Amino acid sequence: MQKILTLLTDFGYQDSYVGIMKGVMYQLAWQSGAAGLTIVDLTHAIPPQDIAAARFNLLQAWAYFPAGTVHVVIVDPGVGGKRRAIAVEFGGGFLVGPDNGVLGGVLEQSPALAAVELTNPHYWRTPYPSHTFHGRDIFAAAAAYLVSGVPMDQLGQRIEVRSLTDLILPSCQANGSTLQGVIQYVDHFGNLVTNIPGIKVIDQQWSVILQGHLIPSRLTYTDSQPGALVCLIGSHQWVEIAVNGGSAQAQLRVTVGTQVLCQIHPAIPSD
Amino acid sequence: MQKILTLLTDFGYQDSYVGIMKGVMYQLAWQSGAAGLTIVDLTHAIPPQDIAAARFNLLQAWAYFPAGTVHVVIVDPGVGGKRRAIAVEFGGGFLVGPDNGVLGGVLEQSPALAAVELTNPHYWRTPYPSHTFHGRDIFAAAAAYLVSGVPMDQLGQRIEVRSLTDLILPSCQANGSTLQGVIQYVDHFGNLVTNIPGIKVIDQQWSVILQGHLIPSRLTYTDSQPGALVCLIGSHQWVEIAVNGGSAQAQLRVTVGTQVLCQIHPAIPSD
Amino acid sequence: MQKILTLLTDFGYQDSYVGIMKGVMYQLAWQSGAAGLTIVDLTHAIPPQDIAAARFNLLQAWAYFPAGTVHVVIVDPGVGGKRRAIAVEFGGGFLVGPDNGVLGGVLEQSPALAAVELTNPHYWRTPYPSHTFHGRDIFAAAAAYLVSGVPMDQLGQRIEVRSLTDLILPSCQANGSTLQGVIQYVDHFGNLVTNIPGIKVIDQQWSVILQGHLIPSRLTYTDSQPGALVCLIGSHQWVEIAVNGGSAQAQLRVTVGTQVLCQIHPAIPSD
Repeated sequence: MQKILTLLTDFGYQDSYVGIMKGVMYQLAWQSGAAGLTIVDLTHAIPPQDIAAARFNLLQAWAYFPAGTVHVVIVDPGVGGKRRAIAVEFGGGFLVGPDNGVLGGVLEQSPALAAVELTNPHYWRTPYPSHTFHGRDIFAAAAAYLVSGVPMDQLGQRIEVRSLTDLILPSCQANGSTLQGVIQYVDHFGNLVTNIPGIKVIDQQWSVILQGHLIPSRLTYTDSQPGALVCLIGSHQWVEIAVNGGSAQAQLRVTVGTQVLCQIHPAIPSD
Repeated sequence: MQKILTLLTDFGYQDSYVGIMKGVMYQLAWQSGAAGLTIVDLTHAIPPQDIAAARFNLLQAWAYFPAGTVHVVIVDPGVGGKRRAIAVEFGGGFLVGPDNGVLGGVLEQSPALAAVELTNPHYWRTPYPSHTFHGRDIFAAAAAYLVSGVPMDQLGQRIEVRSLTDLILPSCQANGSTLQGVIQYVDHFGNLVTNIPGIKVIDQQWSVILQGHLIPSRLTYTDSQPGALVCLIGSHQWVEIAVNGGSAQAQLRVTVGTQVLCQIHPAIPSD
Repeated sequence: MQKILTLLTDFGYQDSYVGIMKGVMYQLAWQSGAAGLTIVDLTHAIPPQDIAAARFNLLQAWAYFPAGTVHVVIVDPGVGGKRRAIAVEFGGGFLVGPDNGVLGGVLEQSPALAAVELTNPHYWRTPYPSHTFHGRDIFAAAAAYLVSGVPMDQLGQRIEVRSLTDLILPSCQANGSTLQGVIQYVDHFGNLVTNIPGIKVIDQQWSVILQGHLIPSRLTYTDSQPGALVCLIGSHQWVEIAVNGGSAQAQLRVTVGTQVLCQIHPAIPSD
C-alpha cells in the first residue's frame, strides 16, 4: 500500500512539534499495518492562527495528490476549547483538522461526503490528551488510522456535513465589464493573488486597477519589462498581480483584503 | 524493515547541508540492505551552536518515535576539535552526535545503556573526513549503519556512560508553596516554557509571577481572554506562560534564563 | 526499486508550492510503477531568481547521492518565456530544470552525456500547462517519469549538450604565490565560501587578505580563538573564511563577488 498524508500547520520550523506529529503518525500507521506511508509537508509557515491562509494553501494543493490522500491541517487557535475536532470524507480522500474553517475551501470545490467528530478516545494517541497540542494527541492519531484503512465512522460520532464551519470571505462582484475583488493571499515571491477567477477574463483583453496603478495583463511574467507591474492568470487560476523578476508586494505594500478592480475591454472587431 | 532516523541540526534551511546528510544516509542504508528507511526532520533551525536549545528539542520529541529509532543531533561547535563523536544506546533506540551535552536531556529521562566513540574509520563515509563537516562524513554514516542493524560496538571503542557530557542547567527550587524556576525555552508561538515540572502544580490552584506580572493559571489557552497572559501546563508537561491568540514573548520580551516564580495557593475547603 | 529525487527551488517555505510538486511527483511515479520513491529537499530558500546560488548548492550536493538520482532545480525567472525546459543525463543520474545555468556547475564536474528539451506533452502533467508554474506542470512530471524508468528520449527532442547554458562566473587567478578570487557564496553560519580551490593551498602555509584583514589559516574552526577570523579549506573543498563560534558575515558584511587574495608562504626549510 502506498498512501500519502499531507501536513499543513502554523507550527513554524523552529521547534520539533512537526517532527513529533510525524513520529506519532508513523508509529501508529506502522502498528496498524500501513508500511508504505509517505508524509508530505505542505507548509508549516502559516502565520500563527491565520485560518484564512491555511484554508487558501490547502485549497491550492489538494487536487495534485492521489485519491485517498489524508490531508491534516493544524491551525487551531481554539485548541482545548469548544471547537470540534473533525474528519471529513470527500472526493479526494480525507481531511482532518479543527472545525474552524480551515477545510472550507476544499469542500467548496469538492463537497463533503460524510464527517465525524473525533470523539472516540480509542483512536486518540492517549486517552488523556493535552489541552494544548491536539495535533499530536488527537489529529495525528486520527490521520494515521484513516490512512491505515480504519473506517472513518470508528473515529467518532457522525455530524451533519452542513454543520461544518466555513469562513465568510469577500466574494468577487461583477458589474458590467468590471469585476471587483480583493487581494486574498500574498505569496513568497510577493505575487498578489486576488479572489477574481481567471475564467472570467481568459481569452479577453483586460487590465487591473490597484491602488491607483493601471496594470496591463499578459500571458506570462516574461511578457512584461523587468521590474514592471503585470497582471495575469496565476497557476492557481486566479487573477494575480506580479512583477517580472521582482516582488509586487515590495512595490505596493498591500494587505490581504485590499480592493482590486478588473476591467474587461471590449473586443476590437477583427474586421 | 521499517526504521526511522530523525535529524536535528543548526544547519538552517538556506543551504543544501541537510540534504547532503540525507544523501549519505540513504546511500549507505540502502547499500547495507535497509530499504525501508524514513528520515524525519525534527528541526534545523536551532540557533547556531545553541546546544541547550537542541538538547531541549530532542528531549521533547524522542518519546513519540517507535522503539529502535536513531536520533541524530548535529549542533557541534567543537567540530574537528577534541570533543568526542559518539553513539549511545538507550531505551528508545540510539542517539548519535557530538559529546557536548546535546544528548543529555534524553538520557536524564531514559538512561544510556552503552556508548561508543565513533573511532572506526571503516564506518565513516570516508577514511579522510573533512575538519568541518562531521555531520556528513562521520555522524550520517554511523547513523545509517546503526539503522541498518550494524552492531554499535563495531562503530568504535566503548566509553563509560558516566563519562558522557551534559549541560549544567538551572534547576527548579521548591520553597514552601513557592517554586522558583527559569524560562528554559521560547517557542515559535512565543510561548515561554519554564523548567518547572507541571506535575508539581497539577490539580492545584496556582499562579506565576514573571517580571512583575501576576499571571493566573488555566487549563487551556482559550480559558483566558484573547490577548491576556495565562499560565498552564504545556504539552511537554512543563509550566508555560502564553497569550491566548497571541505571543507571550512579543508582550514580555524575556530571555532564556529569566526567573519565574510559581505560587501554589492553599486549597479552599470544599465543605 | 529504491530511487531518490532531489528538489532545489526558490519557492521558500511559506506556500504549498513545493508540496504541490511532490504530490504530482508521487502520483505520476506510483502510476508508472515506481513505488519506492524518496524525495529529498536540498533547499527551497534560494533567494528568488538567484540562479548562481542554486547552481552552487546543487554543485555541492549531487555527489553525495546514489547513482541514478534525479535532481530537479526550479529557479526559473524565465518561466513561460523562451528559455528551454530540459533534462540532462550525466554520470550521477539525471538533471531536470530550466536551461538557464542552474545545472552548469554539476556539468562542469561531471559532463553531460545527453540532453533533451521537454517538448513532449504526453509527459507533462497536462497538455495545457500554466504559464507561470512549469515546476508543477512540466518539470515535476518529467522527473517522475525519469525516476520511474521512462527513457529520457521519450520526453522530447535531443539537443546538443554543447548548446546548454551556463553562467559566466569569475575565475580564480594565480599570480606567483598569490591567488586572486572572490566570495562566491555566504552560508547560513555566515561562512564566506570563496572560489579558490582548496587543492591549491593544501599542505602549505597560507593566509587570506579580505577587506584589509589578514586572516591566518587553520585546519579547523576550533584551532582559532573564539570570535577570531580564520580561513580554512571548507567541507566543499574551497577556501573559506569563518569565525570560530560566530559568523564571519556578521563581522565583515561582504557581498558575493567581493575580492579575496590568498597568499601562499614559502616553506621554511626544516633543515
